[in-house]
Amino acid sequence: MTQRPTIGVAVVGTGRMGADHVRRLDRVTSGARVAAVVDVDAERAKRVADGVEGCAAFTDAAQAMAADGVDAVLIASPGPAHEAALLAAFAHDLPVLCEKPLTPDAASALRVMEAEQRLGHRRVQVGFMRRYDAEYQRLKALLDGGDLGRPLMLHNQHRNVSTPPGFTNEMTVNDSAVHEMDVARWLLDQEITAVTVLRPRPSSSAPDGVDDPQFLVFETDGGVLVDVEVNLNCGFGYQVRAEAVCERGTARIGDGVGLVTHTAGRWGGTIDQDFVTRFEDAYDRQVQAWIDATARGETVGPSVWDGYAAAAVCEAAVRAQQEGHRVPVDLVDRPPLYR
Amino acid sequence: MTQRPTIGVAVVGTGRMGADHVRRLDRVTSGARVAAVVDVDAERAKRVADGVEGCAAFTDAAQAMAADGVDAVLIASPGPAHEAALLAAFAHDLPVLCEKPLTPDAASALRVMEAEQRLGHRRVQVGFMRRYDAEYQRLKALLDGGDLGRPLMLHNQHRNVSTPPGFTNEMTVNDSAVHEMDVARWLLDQEITAVTVLRPRPSSSAPDGVDDPQFLVFETDGGVLVDVEVNLNCGFGYQVRAEAVCERGTARIGDGVGLVTHTAGRWGGTIDQDFVTRFEDAYDRQVQAWIDATARGETVGPSVWDGYAAAAVCEAAVRAQQEGHRVPVDLVDRPPLYR
Amino acid sequence: MTQRPTIGVAVVGTGRMGADHVRRLDRVTSGARVAAVVDVDAERAKRVADGVEGCAAFTDAAQAMAADGVDAVLIASPGPAHEAALLAAFAHDLPVLCEKPLTPDAASALRVMEAEQRLGHRRVQVGFMRRYDAEYQRLKALLDGGDLGRPLMLHNQHRNVSTPPGFTNEMTVNDSAVHEMDVARWLLDQEITAVTVLRPRPSSSAPDGVDDPQFLVFETDGGVLVDVEVNLNCGFGYQVRAEAVCERGTARIGDGVGLVTHTAGRWGGTIDQDFVTRFEDAYDRQVQAWIDATARGETVGPSVWDGYAAAAVCEAAVRAQQEGHRVPVDLVDRPPLYR
Amino acid sequence: MTQRPTIGVAVVGTGRMGADHVRRLDRVTSGARVAAVVDVDAERAKRVADGVEGCAAFTDAAQAMAADGVDAVLIASPGPAHEAALLAAFAHDLPVLCEKPLTPDAASALRVMEAEQRLGHRRVQVGFMRRYDAEYQRLKALLDGGDLGRPLMLHNQHRNVSTPPGFTNEMTVNDSAVHEMDVARWLLDQEITAVTVLRPRPSSSAPDGVDDPQFLVFETDGGVLVDVEVNLNCGFGYQVRAEAVCERGTARIGDGVGLVTHTAGRWGGTIDQDFVTRFEDAYDRQVQAWIDATARGETVGPSVWDGYAAAAVCEAAVRAQQEGHRVPVDLVDRPPLYR
Repeated sequence: MTQRPTIGVAVVGTGRMGADHVRRLDRVTSGARVAAVVDVDAERAKRVADGVEGCAAFTDAAQAMAADGVDAVLIASPGPAHEAALLAAFAHDLPVLCEKPLTPDAASALRVMEAEQRLGHRRVQVGFMRRYDAEYQRLKALLDGGDLGRPLMLHNQHRNVSTPPGFTNEMTVNDSAVHEMDVARWLLDQEITAVTVLRPRPSSSAPDGVDDPQFLVFETDGGVLVDVEVNLNCGFGYQVRAEAVCERGTARIGDGVGLVTHTAGRWGGTIDQDFVTRFEDAYDRQVQAWIDATARGETVGPSVWDGYAAAAVCEAAVRAQQEGHRVPVDLVDRPPLYR
Repeated sequence: MTQRPTIGVAVVGTGRMGADHVRRLDRVTSGARVAAVVDVDAERAKRVADGVEGCAAFTDAAQAMAADGVDAVLIASPGPAHEAALLAAFAHDLPVLCEKPLTPDAASALRVMEAEQRLGHRRVQVGFMRRYDAEYQRLKALLDGGDLGRPLMLHNQHRNVSTPPGFTNEMTVNDSAVHEMDVARWLLDQEITAVTVLRPRPSSSAPDGVDDPQFLVFETDGGVLVDVEVNLNCGFGYQVRAEAVCERGTARIGDGVGLVTHTAGRWGGTIDQDFVTRFEDAYDRQVQAWIDATARGETVGPSVWDGYAAAAVCEAAVRAQQEGHRVPVDLVDRPPLYR
Repeated sequence: MTQRPTIGVAVVGTGRMGADHVRRLDRVTSGARVAAVVDVDAERAKRVADGVEGCAAFTDAAQAMAADGVDAVLIASPGPAHEAALLAAFAHDLPVLCEKPLTPDAASALRVMEAEQRLGHRRVQVGFMRRYDAEYQRLKALLDGGDLGRPLMLHNQHRNVSTPPGFTNEMTVNDSAVHEMDVARWLLDQEITAVTVLRPRPSSSAPDGVDDPQFLVFETDGGVLVDVEVNLNCGFGYQVRAEAVCERGTARIGDGVGLVTHTAGRWGGTIDQDFVTRFEDAYDRQVQAWIDATARGETVGPSVWDGYAAAAVCEAAVRAQQEGHRVPVDLVDRPPLYR
Repeated sequence: MTQRPTIGVAVVGTGRMGADHVRRLDRVTSGARVAAVVDVDAERAKRVADGVEGCAAFTDAAQAMAADGVDAVLIASPGPAHEAALLAAFAHDLPVLCEKPLTPDAASALRVMEAEQRLGHRRVQVGFMRRYDAEYQRLKALLDGGDLGRPLMLHNQHRNVSTPPGFTNEMTVNDSAVHEMDVARWLLDQEITAVTVLRPRPSSSAPDGVDDPQFLVFETDGGVLVDVEVNLNCGFGYQVRAEAVCERGTARIGDGVGLVTHTAGRWGGTIDQDFVTRFEDAYDRQVQAWIDATARGETVGPSVWDGYAAAAVCEAAVRAQQEGHRVPVDLVDRPPLYR
C-alpha cells in the first residue's frame, strides 16, 4: 500500500450524465473530490456546485481547468463540445475521462488523436463503461484465456424499453450500436472492417420514421462475424446480451444469470470459492453505509440487540448440539432503545 | 445534495479482517480516511499505518480513540477483546462498526447492551454484512412487500470448501451458523425461540471430531420453521443460499442467478428497466479506475484510438443503413501511441 | 430384436386413475391391449369397455382374471380392495401392476408379501411411478455412479396447488409423503429407520384442521438425513423437487431445468451429444401422430407443399452460398389442397 | 373413446433411420405393426423382418405396398429414391410418412405435389419431426396465442459436435439448415422470400473445404428476419436453439431449461399445475416397462417389499405427526425374494 493524494476533478457539463458523475465523485468514488463544475448555464452550474464542499462553478471549461485544485477533467457535455474541451485539457496536460462519443465524427476524432500524439502521451480515457461491467470483464477474461479457442462469431442484443421523443435512425447507430462496436473491438481485440444493416418490418411500437429493430452485421479483420440486434422499443426491459461462439464452446452474458458457458458436453457457470468473492460487495456496502450514516450523525444497521440475540441463539445451538435435543432460547425483554 | 465531512476512522485490530478494512476505508469507501490503527503487535500496527497517508499507529484502543482526527471506530480485533473496545468507544461517544460476534457470549453482550442504554442512544452497528448483500436485500424487500404472503419456512444452506485446521463443532455454530441466525431474524423480523441440531453420518471429508455437515432447525416466535444445512467441507465451493417458502409463492437466492421466484404458475426473475440499474456498477468502477490511474500518474482504459474507431464504424453503419448495402470501414494506420 | 406377443390386460377399477390407465394401454402403450375392465359399478365398467375394441366388462376381479385373453392385471381400485385383488392375481399367477398404496397398512402389506413368497417368484410391480421419471432416473444414475461421493442429505419438496375437500393430516402422509418415502429409499438404496414431523404455523390457505405445510425428517440406516417439505396448498403450482447433498457435490431436479449439479467449482447441466437423445421424443410423437391420424383416415403434419418449399429455399441457399450474395426464392402459387 | 384398428406399415429402407423406425413402430408406437420392410439389399431386409412378428421382406417398394396387411408406408430410403416410392404409394392411395427431404430438389418436389393433387387429397406427411418436439410446440403455441405480439426476428442456432467424413458445403444447407427453414416457415406461418449466406473465417475444427460455421439470413413474406448459425463442428454438443423476438417480448428454447420468456419486466418459465402434466411421461414409461417385462416373462420395478416398507414408514409418520416426537420405524427382516 502506498499513500495517495485526493484528486480534484472538474466536471464539464452538468446535465443528467454530468450531475450523476458529480454525485458519484462526491459520494461513491474513493480518493476524489469535485473541485469544479462547468456549464454554459451558469445557474445550473452554481446549483450543482453548492451541493458539494469546496466546489467552484464555471461557465468556461478552460477557465475551470486553470483553477486551483483541479487535477483532472471529466467531460460530460454534449458531443459537439467535446473537441474544444479535450484540446483545452491537453493545453493543461490534464487527465480526462470523456463520455462517449469522443467526438461526433471520425474527422474530429482524428484531430483529437493528432493533438494527443503531439502531447506525447495518453491523457484521455473514453467512457465506454461496458468494459468495466463485471460480466463483460469475465467474458473478456475467458476469451483472452483461450480455453474456448478462437472466437468465430458474436451474437449480441441491445434492447431498450422505448426510445425517447425525437429519436432517429442515425441515433440507433450513434447512441446505441456504438457501444456494441466498442464491445466487439475490445472483446476480440480486432478492428471492424465492414458493416451491413438489415431490417425486419418495423415493430408497431417503433415511432414513425424509425426502423426498429435493426440487425447490424460487422466483419472484423480477424475473420469474426458479429451480429447485433438493436431493438429500442422492445417494451419489456433493458437488456444487453452477448454470446461468443468459439472453436471449442460458447459463452454468454446478459441474462441476469452471470456468465454461462457451453463446453465439453456441459453448460453452466462457476461457483465462488470463498466469502471474499461472494460477499465483497456486501462488505464494501456495509462500510459505506456506516460511514454515510456517521456523516449524517446517525447509527443504522444491525444493533447491539441483534448481536446479543445471535449470541443467545448460539449458546442454545451449542447446547442442542452437545445434548442432542431441542433447546429453547431465552432472551431478556427487548429494551426500548432497540425497538 | 448536502456537504459532508470526511470521517476519520480508528481501526482496532490489523489482522486479516482489520487490514482488509483499512484497505477498504482507504481505497474503496468514499468520505472516509483511516486516521489511526491499533494492534497489540506494535510493529504490525506501524507497518499498516505506514501505507496510509496521515495514519497513526497505536497499541491501545482507548488512546487511539482519544487521538486527533478520530471520528469513528471500526473494531476488528478478536471477539474476546470487543467488550473493552466497545466500552472505550462509548466513553468517547464514538460511532462503532463492530465485526461479528458482538462479544463471545450472551452475558457479555448484555453488559454492552446495558452500557449503550446508559449512553442513551445507539452507537454500534454490528458487522452482519449479509444484510448489505444485494440478493439478500432483494429477498428482504420482497418478503416485506408482502406479495408472497406470510413466510412459513426458510430453507438455507451455508457451504464452505473446507474447514481450517483446529476447527471444532462449536465453531460450526459460532462462526458459521451465526450468520444464518441473524439472516433469519432479519429477513423475518422475528426472534428465534428454539434450536434443534440434527446430524447425518459425517462426510469423509470432515476432520476427525467435527460432525460435518450439520442440520439446524430454528423455530421463531412468528411460527416460522427455519432449517439450515451447515456444510463446511463440501469441497466444491462457497455457497450461501436461502429459500423462503411463503403462503403464495417461494423466493430463493444464492444460485448465482439472482433472485428467483415461483409464484402464480411461473418461475423466474426480473429484468432491469434501464441502463442505470444494469450498468450502475460499471459506471462506478469506470470512474474509480480512472481516479486510481490518475493518482498513479497513468492513463488506462479505452483510448482516443478506440473513440476514433467507433466514430469511423458509426459513419459506415449510418451509410449502410441509408444505402441498404454492405459498407467497408476505412481506418487510418494505428499510431504507435495506441498500440 | 425378438418377436413378442400382445399382452391382454385386465384393469381393476375404472375411476379416474383406472380410466386413465385404460386410455394409456389402448392408445399409448405398445404391445398391450385392454382385454377386460372391472368395476363394482357395472354400468361404469360397461361404458369404459365399450370404448375399447374386444374389451369385456366385469364386476368381479377374480372372474375377469379367469377370462380368455387376460395375461396381466392392473389394479387401480381403492386401496382397501387391493389385498383381495392381489391374492386373486396370485391364484392365477398373473403379473400385476398395483397402484400405490400396495395396501393401506403394514400388516396387510405383510400378508401380501407372505403370499407372494409362497408363490415363489415376484409377480407384483407397485406403482411408484416417480422411479420412471426421466429426471429422477438421471439423479439415481448420478448417485449410483459415485462421482459425487456418498450422499449425506436429501432436501425434498412436494408442493401442490391445493388440497381437495375432505383432506386430513393423515392423508398428508399416506397420499403425498408416501412418494417421498419411496423416492428416498430408492435413490439411496437404504431403509428409513426413524421419522420426525415438524410444523410451522399453518398457512392461511390450509383448510381448517389441516396442518399445512409440514416438514418431515427421515433418518436412514446408511446415516443419511432426509428432509421433506410437504406443502399442499402452496397456490402457485405442482412442484416436486429433490436435492442430493453428497460428499463432493450436489445435484438437484424439479426446477423445470433438468438435472443441475454443483461440483468442482461449477454449476450446470449436460448437453445432448446427438439428435437421437435431443429429439427422440419428437420422433416417437411424430410417428404416433401419423399412426393415429391414419387410423382416423386423416393426413396431418408437414405437407408436400412444405417439402417443396424447403427444397426451393435449399436451392436458393446453395446458390447464395456459392455466389456470395442475397438470392431471392421463387415459389409456385400455393395450390388449394395445401391452403 | 372409439375403437380403432391396428395399422400395418411397410417401411421402405432399412438403413439407420429405417431400422430405427421399424423398432419404434414395433416397440414404441401404439396401434401399429410393421407388416413389411423393403430394401434393395434383400439380406438386410430379411434380417430386419425376422425380428418382427408377422413381417414380410421385399426388395421392391411397389410390391410391398400391394401386400396383404399393408395400410400405410413409411419411406426412409435415400432421398433420390423418394419420388418413385411416393408415386407408388399414390397408386395404392396409401398414407405416407416420408423422411426429409421430400425429394432432393424443387423440380421433383413439384412433380410429387402435382401427383398428390391429381389424387385429390393429402396422403403425405413429411418427416420434419421438430414440429413434434415439445419445446418447439410450446414456442409455436405461444407465438400463435399472440401474447408477445407480432414476431420480428428469429435467432436460431444449429450445432453439431462434428461432421462425418465426406461432408460438403451443400450438405450444410440440404441436411442441416433445411430443418431451420421448415421451423421458420412453420413457427411464423410465412414463406421465405430470400436467402443470404455469410461466413466467418472457418473454424480450425472444420474439415478442409467446408466453410463451418455459416450464418444464414432468411427474409420472409411477413417481414421477419431469420438468422441461423449453422455450426457443425462445434465440438461441445448437439444444440438446437431458437429465440423469437416479438413486439412485446422474447421467447427461447433449446438451452435444456424449457421455454424461457422475457416479457413485461420478467424472465422465466411456467410451472406445472398438477401431477398429470408433470409426471405424464413417468406414467407412460412405467406402464410400458411393465408390459415389456411381462412380455419377457419378468417382473421388475418397485416390489411388494417396497410397498410394505412405505406402509411401515407411513404408520410411523402418522404417529410422529400425532405424538409430536421422533418415531422409529420397525421393519421385518427382508425376505430373500426381495434382496
